[in-house]
Parts: sequence; C-alpha cells; structure tokens
Amino acid sequence: MNTEPLYIQMRVGDNVAIVVNEGGLPAGSRFACGLSLLERVPQGHKLALVDIKAGAPVLRYGVRIGLALQDIRAGAWVHEQLLAMPAARSLDELPICNAVAPALPPLDGYSFEGYRNADGSVGTRNILAITTTVQCVAGVLEQALKRIKVELLPLYPNVDDVIALEHGYGCGVAIDAPDAIIPIRTLRNISLNPNFGGEVMVVSLGCEKLQPERLLPPGSIAITDQRDAELDVVRLQDDAHIGYQVMLDAILRSARTHLERLNLRRRETVPASELVVGVQCGGSDAFSGVTANPAVGFCTDLLVRAGATVLFSEVTEVRDAVDQLTGRAATPAIAEAIRREMAWYDAYLQRGSADRSANTTPGNKAGGLSNIVEKAMGSIIKSGTAPISGVLSPGEKLSSRGLIFAATPASDFICGTLQLAAGMNLHIFTTGRGTPYGLAACPVIKVATRNELARRWHDLMDVNAGRIASGEASIEEIGWEMFQLLLDVASGRKKTWAEQWGLHNALVLFNPAPIT
Amino acid sequence: MNTEPLYIQMRVGDNVAIVVNEGGLPAGSRFACGLSLLERVPQGHKLALVDIKAGAPVLRYGVRIGLALQDIRAGAWVHEQLLAMPAARSLDELPICNAVAPALPPLDGYSFEGYRNADGSVGTRNILAITTTVQCVAGVLEQALKRIKVELLPLYPNVDDVIALEHGYGCGVAIDAPDAIIPIRTLRNISLNPNFGGEVMVVSLGCEKLQPERLLPPGSIAITDQRDAELDVVRLQDDAHIGYQVMLDAILRSARTHLERLNLRRRETVPASELVVGVQCGGSDAFSGVTANPAVGFCTDLLVRAGATVLFSEVTEVRDAVDQLTGRAATPAIAEAIRREMAWYDAYLQRGSADRSANTTPGNKAGGLSNIVEKAMGSIIKSGTAPISGVLSPGEKLSSRGLIFAATPASDFICGTLQLAAGMNLHIFTTGRGTPYGLAACPVIKVATRNELARRWHDLMDVNAGRIASGEASIEEIGWEMFQLLLDVASGRKKTWAEQWGLHNALVLFNPAPIT
Repeated sequence: MNTEPLYIQMRVGDNVAIVVNEGGLPAGSRFACGLSLLERVPQGHKLALVDIKAGAPVLRYGVRIGLALQDIRAGAWVHEQLLAMPAARSLDELPICNAVAPALPPLDGYSFEGYRNADGSVGTRNILAITTTVQCVAGVLEQALKRIKVELLPLYPNVDDVIALEHGYGCGVAIDAPDAIIPIRTLRNISLNPNFGGEVMVVSLGCEKLQPERLLPPGSIAITDQRDAELDVVRLQDDAHIGYQVMLDAILRSARTHLERLNLRRRETVPASELVVGVQCGGSDAFSGVTANPAVGFCTDLLVRAGATVLFSEVTEVRDAVDQLTGRAATPAIAEAIRREMAWYDAYLQRGSADRSANTTPGNKAGGLSNIVEKAMGSIIKSGTAPISGVLSPGEKLSSRGLIFAATPASDFICGTLQLAAGMNLHIFTTGRGTPYGLAACPVIKVATRNELARRWHDLMDVNAGRIASGEASIEEIGWEMFQLLLDVASGRKKTWAEQWGLHNALVLFNPAPIT
Repeated sequence: MNTEPLYIQMRVGDNVAIVVNEGGLPAGSRFACGLSLLERVPQGHKLALVDIKAGAPVLRYGVRIGLALQDIRAGAWVHEQLLAMPAARSLDELPICNAVAPALPPLDGYSFEGYRNADGSVGTRNILAITTTVQCVAGVLEQALKRIKVELLPLYPNVDDVIALEHGYGCGVAIDAPDAIIPIRTLRNISLNPNFGGEVMVVSLGCEKLQPERLLPPGSIAITDQRDAELDVVRLQDDAHIGYQVMLDAILRSARTHLERLNLRRRETVPASELVVGVQCGGSDAFSGVTANPAVGFCTDLLVRAGATVLFSEVTEVRDAVDQLTGRAATPAIAEAIRREMAWYDAYLQRGSADRSANTTPGNKAGGLSNIVEKAMGSIIKSGTAPISGVLSPGEKLSSRGLIFAATPASDFICGTLQLAAGMNLHIFTTGRGTPYGLAACPVIKVATRNELARRWHDLMDVNAGRIASGEASIEEIGWEMFQLLLDVASGRKKTWAEQWGLHNALVLFNPAPIT
C-alpha cells in the first residue's frame, strides 16, 4: 500500500482531483507535485489543484460539475457547499452520432457453459421461476415453495433453485392507464428471462385485474419450449380447489411437471456472445468513477468485442452526460430514442415536483460526490467506449445485441428488475459505500471501489477494484479479471458471494401509473 | 338451503334486485312475487323488477348506479353493458353533518386479554418487528431472521413471532418531493404499531436516503417504553462489521435485547375499547354489500358503542358515496377533511390519466358488480351508522377513537399497510370471490360473502356471512359473531386461519412521489 499523499486527476485540464489515501489527508499533506493541502480532505473528496475564482467552472472528467460559489485556493477542500450545480443539459440540439468509435476488434475464442433455450437465449442458471399475477397469491405460494424445496427439489438435482416472482402489482391499480404498460411488460418479460428455461408457470388468484392471459397473451410463450404453448395457470379460486391443502397440492403438481423438464437440461459450451450482462452501480462514492466503473467499462468493451450484450441503465445517473450518449449512438434513430427516454423521465420527475438532483444520497455525498453531475460522469464510464447499438424503454425485452441503453430508474432494485426483464443473464454491480445486493434470478458479481471496503466486506465483494487506486492493478487488469470471472460464474464453476449466502433482494416494479 | 328462486332487493324503491341462488337461475324461473326471469341470470347479478325505460335511472341501495342504455323489461338481466355510469359526484356543495346519527347507546362489559403498551395502546400479539430503512438490507435481514427463529425465538416463549418490516422504499426515490411524506410516515408509524410492544429496532445500510434519524426522529419513540429513547440501529456499513457473519451477529445481538423485554410482557384484561379494527373488502362481489359488509357494519356499530376504534378506508370505493360521508361527519371540520382527501385522490388519479372507474376488476364484474358506483354502495356499508369522528391522511397515526375514515387506496395490501400505520391491532376482511389475504403484523379475520365460498374455502374463511343470503342467520347475528370472534382472536384464545397456515402478504407502500 502506498502511504504517500496521493490524488487522482481524471483528465488533463481538470482543476480538482480526489484524495486516494484511506482515512483522508490532514492539512499540510504535501503531494509529489509540490501542492500542499490547506485543510483536511476526506478520502475520495476533491481538492483544488489550482486557485479557482468565484463563478469559474469546477472541472472533473473534463466536464463542468459545478461553478465555484466563492474563491477557492489551491489545496482547499472542494465540497458540495462550494459548488452551484449546473442546469440540466437541454435536450434540444444534442450532438448526433458525432463520436461513434470505430468498431472494436473482435475478441474470439471465449466461451462458457450455459443452458441453451428454445428461443435462442442462453441461461447461466437453471431455475424454476413461478410467475404471479397478483400479490394476493404470495402467502400461499410462499408456503408451497417451502414444500417444493423440501419435497421436490432434491429429486431434480440439475435444477438450481425454485423461486417466486412476487410483486405488489396486479390489482388495485389503474391497469388501463397509459403508463401501466411498464409494470405489465416488465412482469411478462421477467417470466421469459433466459435463466428460467422457457418453463412458464403462473399462479393466479382469479378475480385480479392482471389476468394471466393479459400478462402472457397467446404467442408470448410460443417461442419457448413449453410443449403445448398453452399457459400453465394454477388459479386459487378454481372451483376444484376445495380448501387450502388442495391449492398447495395443485401448485406442487404443476411445479413437478416443469421441474422434470428443467432437470433434463445440461450445460453446453456456448460462445461468450451469449452473455447478457447488466451493469449497475449502487452506494456510489467518488472512487466509483475512478476504479470500479472504469474497469467495468473496459470489461464492457471486451464483452461487446466478443459479440455479447451489455445493458447500461439508470436514467438520472446518465442524464447529465446525454450529449455523450447521443454522440455515441450508432444511428440517428438510436440517438433520438435516447433523447426520448430522457425527455420522458424529465417529465415524469417534474409531474412529481422533482428533478434529477433528487438522485444523490447522503452516502454519495459522504463519499465525495458533490452532486448528480459528478455522479453521472462516474456512472456512465461503465458503458465503455463502444457505439450504442440499441435502446430499451423500461420493461422491454432485448431484440438485438451489443451495447444497449436500457432506460430505467437508478433505484438498484427497480433497475435490476428491469434488466432482468430485458433478458439479463449475469449482473455486475459496483459499490463504494457497500451494499449486500443480490437477485434470486441471476448471479450478481459485486465490485468494490476501494481496498478498505474489499477488506472489510471480504466475504461479500467478489472483485476488488480498489487496487486500481492503490496502484496494485491497472484498469485493464481488473477489467480482464471481471471478464474471466463472468465466464466462470456464467458456467456455474464459481458462485458469487450473494449466491453462497443466499442474499436476495425483492423484485421492485416501476409503476408510474396510479394505484386505485 | 332454500332452493326456491330468490332475489334480494336492498331498498324499497330499487328497480333491480340480485339473484341469491347458487349457480344462478335459468330463464323462466318464477319468484314468489310472480315475476319471471326472461333470461338466465347468474348468482349475484341483477334482474329488473319493473320495466325500465332507456335513459331512466337504475336504482340499487336507493342510489342511481347507472342510467339504462336501452329499454329493459321486468325480469331481464341488468348487466354492465346496459348501464351508463354516472359522473362522479361533484365535491362542491356537499351536504355537511346533515345525517349525523344520534349517539348510539354505550355497550359496556366487553373485554379482551391484551398487551398494554407504554404509549397507552394495546397489542393483540407480541411481535418483534425489525424496521428496515431500505430494501438493500432485506437479503441480510432475511438470513438473520432464519437464525433468530431457530436460535433465539425458542428461548422467549412469550414472544409470538419475529418479522421484518421489508419494503421497496428508502433509496432511489425523490425523498424531498411533496408526496414522499406518505411512504416515510407510513414506515415510521408501522414501526410503532401496538402489536410490536414499543420495541423499535432498525436495520439500516448506512448510505441510504431514508436515514434512521429521518425515519424515526428524536421524540418519535420517546412515547414507547424503549429504555433510553435512543434509536437502536444496526448499520450494515459500520466499520466494526468485518464481514457478513459479523453483520448477522450484530443483528442477533440487538434482537436478543428486544426479545428479552418483549418476553417479560403478559396479557391482561383490558376493555374492548382498546381494539383498533381495520375493515376492508377485497375480491368483492354483489353479495359483499348484501351479506358480509352489512354484518361488518353492524359489528362496527357494536365496536363504536363499546368505545373502540374502527378504521374504514378505500377512497375509490367510497368516492361515489361522499355525500353520505360528509353528511355523517361529526363536525364540519371532519366533513371538510373527507372532501379534501377525495379531492386529493381525484387529482392524483387524473395526473396519471385515470379515474375512479379504474377500480373495478374482472372478478368484481363476474360477481355481478356493474361499476364502481354499485361497488361503492356495497363497500361503504362496512362503516355502519355511527357519526364519523375523525379522518386520517395516508400513513397518519390515530390520535382519537371512534369511527375513523382512514383515506387509503383500495389496493388490499396498500390499504392494509396504511391501516397498520394508523395503529390497527385487528383486521376484518370480507371477500366474495375469495382471497387468502393475511398480514404478519396483525391477525386478519376473513369473512365470506357466500355459502359456496365458505364451504369451498372451509380452512381459509373465518366467518361465513353467506348464511344471511340463505336465510340461516341475520345480519345482526353474524355481526355479533364477528364481535365475539374479534375478542377471542384479540385475546389469543383463537387463531385466524391465516395465522394457522402462516399466510402473510407483503407490506406494500403507497408512494405517489417519483422514483429516481
């Protein structure tokens, strides 16, 4: 570990840099360049590299993250109270396709062991997921799951798990409101996630608004290998269900059919291009954009070069870099789709008397991120450098490969839920403050931005990108380490810590439509 | 069972009635009054008692539930396609306090065995509820709960259960938006529910927006018997938590302190006035307003006479009876509060391009309810006849007794969650189509509207109000049966079916503010 005072300046021309040293640095600390700190600066927080006049831009990532509210002297702590946040970039006259990188060289020869599905997708796990139409059935299904895990699952050793796709939607909602399409298609598409092997099984109450046929209309499961393409539904209100135990038995009977088919499946070698990796950050700090996210960005480029798909998301965390996104769009239509998603979200927030500045958390700020502009610049790095080749609205399912902007809220659970709906079969999640995030439907590889977090949460963090800040590893090395780990985890050769401990968060739906 | 053709006319002057007979009645069925059916009418559906001209009002409960879209002959099936739904009653010039019933005679001498709390409330169960500030901690807490149930709970036999107050809120939300107060105070007040004995224990991540001190600011738990009135918080990000197992241990250590205190508590005899009963209906049919809900209404009157508190809710299901509510308000200020809640909800729905008509479900309609007006007339009967003595906005906590309108969405889970926040210690839930609804925090007594449902779901329905339609019991008899059952369940002498099977639904928060 380097214990000399150390800062990281992201771009030549930035007039601030962040302190690397654990525990921060006291006043008087002298950097190799000769600059001394005028006051204590916490780890990850910004110091002024030069004198900054009141009203002058404060630059990080080569971007104005704010305007100085007073004169700031070189060596001072540049904290959030000293910065005026810039207004959001207008969505008019955005640059279009002006910064499309040349095609990256293909990366051949990488593969993993996956489960091929009838619809062409590939699973990284072999899970029976039981779809629910409505929260009403959750209690009964939970008890049925307990029995399935004890009585059935041991009989089907090739099946990894059985889970309920439980949620709060399905009734008591304005199901015909314009925005209701979002939660409905989210639930539909999650049921078709590659990790569920095309075995769609629905538990319905009977009288709910979200009828099974509305959730999964004819045709939506025909692409799977479900034998008769007829929806398998257990309706608790069915006349044949004389009492609670009969309901449980009906669920178990149906589950058995699907478990038998899932159990016949075997992993086979498939190219790395079958990976669909969702990238996300949560509990971010100032190192997120310096260590973990740049390494994810490098890994994103590797994946895209290998022909795989990467989903990046979190609208409010990329909003301030919208010009970078539209510039990188592969086609004008994709740039327009990016603009449209941003405009929709701006209007959505405004309807609720909020804006993008509502994104940052107390933890972000304690970690050195002064505002959403600075956070966004560190967040968007996860998308690497490839051209953006597609856009998904919230809850939509993938229909193309490459680097995809899947528009979602930044809420970790809502974003993860929507990425599952898009077809994610593997998840990378970076964190600076630390979160024990996990999903039952898909392995989550967690990446620490700092050595201290990686040490403290030694049995929760799968990758330590903090070594980039301490000079022990390069961005490229950590990016390659992630790439290899993705292939190992996808193949079932390795488990993530979240899988090892059984740490799963809830599905949380994005429902911008009203509740009734 | 009466097998003669039978209908129920709710009020003299109604020009429709509903068919009582199971399976419905075929064309030609002749009622005692001489009227014959012109066509088959399903059970619970309406028949015309007289010829109704196109454009004339169709009257049920003495209220216009619609206008006839064509001439309807006596003996015809009056289904939803024949009715134009009336516009919502304007909220201007509502009657104010013009129908306040004289005070009902006090009902003395009833008591139950409950747990007295330091803040004056009384619990019906003795539960350790672990508050969470954010979904991030849910996976770790779930694993901790498994250990608590195995390692600790058996040591504390007077404690009924340990549960997590898990939810999707807490971060990734516009926490300063005007409407964010609703989910925040809901979580705060649920933590203080009487069934949790004033033992507040919080599991927090650390960096989330909903910081523990924001959720439960100083003073909010001073009214409980927590020894030092200092918030007990386990923060997963605390420096002392070196790894996952240490986090689990910290949660267990904290839980043990609270379990020890809860275990010292004993039930004591308290007057029935300490009951706080939330009433709700879900999966309603045309019998809801004929059997179960009128019996609940009778029971509501008994409770109010005994000095207890009854919460009735579900804004969109009483909206069309707003004039009845403002008329029954005990004071003009209460009438104005009722009007204000309705206006707020009208605007909320309109913001999302919906209105009250979004409430009815396919199951409601299959059950004979043509529209929200008819549904509302059957729903509001649960409130009995007493003067309305208070109004709560969503998520607010009770501060008075009597009959309270707790404004909530009609969604079963959101309504139940908000009634828990209000301070509910016992729940009555009526259903016509059937739902296995349950809450971990509070016993739920489920009431079937029909004999057939009560027979079929013999081990899920706690009360059969269907006997009212078949003439086997009166509304008063079923109302008294409920009242006695409430006292038995409150005392722990009886368990509800949902408790017996461990059927619990999720807490679902009402968050009208945006997600970020």
